[in-house]
Amino acid sequence: MRSRGESTPLPKVNLAELTPELMPYLGQAAYLQLSFFAAAARLSGAAANLDDKLVLAVTAGQMLDKHQQLVAEIKRHGGSPGDVMKPFTEGIDAYGEMVRGANWHESLTSLLLTAGLLDDFFSFLAAGLAQGTGPKMVQIHELGSQRREVADILTRAIEADERLGSQLAMWGRRVVGDTLLVARSAIHQSGNAVSDELRIEPVFTEVIAAHTRRMDALGLTA
Amino acid sequence: MRSRGESTPLPKVNLAELTPELMPYLGQAAYLQLSFFAAAARLSGAAANLDDKLVLAVTAGQMLDKHQQLVAEIKRHGGSPGDVMKPFTEGIDAYGEMVRGANWHESLTSLLLTAGLLDDFFSFLAAGLAQGTGPKMVQIHELGSQRREVADILTRAIEADERLGSQLAMWGRRVVGDTLLVARSAIHQSGNAVSDELRIEPVFTEVIAAHTRRMDALGLTA
Repeated sequence: MRSRGESTPLPKVNLAELTPELMPYLGQAAYLQLSFFAAAARLSGAAANLDDKLVLAVTAGQMLDKHQQLVAEIKRHGGSPGDVMKPFTEGIDAYGEMVRGANWHESLTSLLLTAGLLDDFFSFLAAGLAQGTGPKMVQIHELGSQRREVADILTRAIEADERLGSQLAMWGRRVVGDTLLVARSAIHQSGNAVSDELRIEPVFTEVIAAHTRRMDALGLTA
Repeated sequence: MRSRGESTPLPKVNLAELTPELMPYLGQAAYLQLSFFAAAARLSGAAANLDDKLVLAVTAGQMLDKHQQLVAEIKRHGGSPGDVMKPFTEGIDAYGEMVRGANWHESLTSLLLTAGLLDDFFSFLAAGLAQGTGPKMVQIHELGSQRREVADILTRAIEADERLGSQLAMWGRRVVGDTLLVARSAIHQSGNAVSDELRIEPVFTEVIAAHTRRMDALGLTA
């Protein structure tokens, strides 16, 4: 999901040095999108009005489409989607529960922020993938014309209720913390954890900068 | 959703005599598919294993696709999707609650049976639509290669637990009753309610026959 037409610049680190293995990358990315899809569909089902319901149904459809493109990629490389996603289901389900939020607006904020953060992160990480898979992965993760509509729903709600704004700002800080833990675990596939952590710091800096711009667009302090 | 490759024969009544108005037909059909989509996505999110989760995500995607095709049709005829669906949201939401079921297997049975019954019904009803819209509506409502996979999930569960089978057979009878009420309300747009009711009886006979075949395929008594 890309916000307000802005595009996130590539960080100045040589990400090719971070070489995630293809199958764990695809499995994790595919199950994450499935989890975003479920969250968006749930929000659509629970929306208080028909307009929001329709926006979130289209958003869910885009996330399902990303999931299905990643599943197709797993198959194209000879993997079984179930087997490849399996190692990540428990962790991502637990993460989904952590960022689920106490009410509809918190859940919607989570969806916008977590999909934004992790789409950016998996785009950056794609640079290190072997066999020219990277550009396709970037393309898949950059899909998401609905981000603007989702942000608009939140902006309207925040403008109408100042207390909601400060509640969601606090919630956003908690969500970003939990999400960076998931992102960090994504690079612990490739063996050399300590040196990977050092290499990944500039990526986190960029990912958080994009997150801060998303919060700004909502009128919230990151 | 079409089961086991069988195709439902058109009833022997002249359905062209039932002339539903296009916009109410499209609004109701589109919101029903959105409601099926939400139910399928919820079942995917709550599935106990990854295989079922994936089958239901694809099923949800197909239902969303049908919804979006119907929304496109509303726009093509100059309607505003929100306005056209609006009159039906409350009734269909209430119906969705009625057939939601007390647990995952009841909800899944509902999804299979209600989508089956109402896809058939809206296909039949399409024969009376003006301006050659009918064949396209039949085509949209017949989409659904996932029905077999959904039935397979239920069949396996019923084979493994005899008590579940009789519970779901009872549940299926309740669901079909509630669903025929929704179907009946769909023909009360066109003015002459009593004569429409008489004309619609053969349609119900066919729709219920197809329903009975679906129950048989699950090993359940309709």
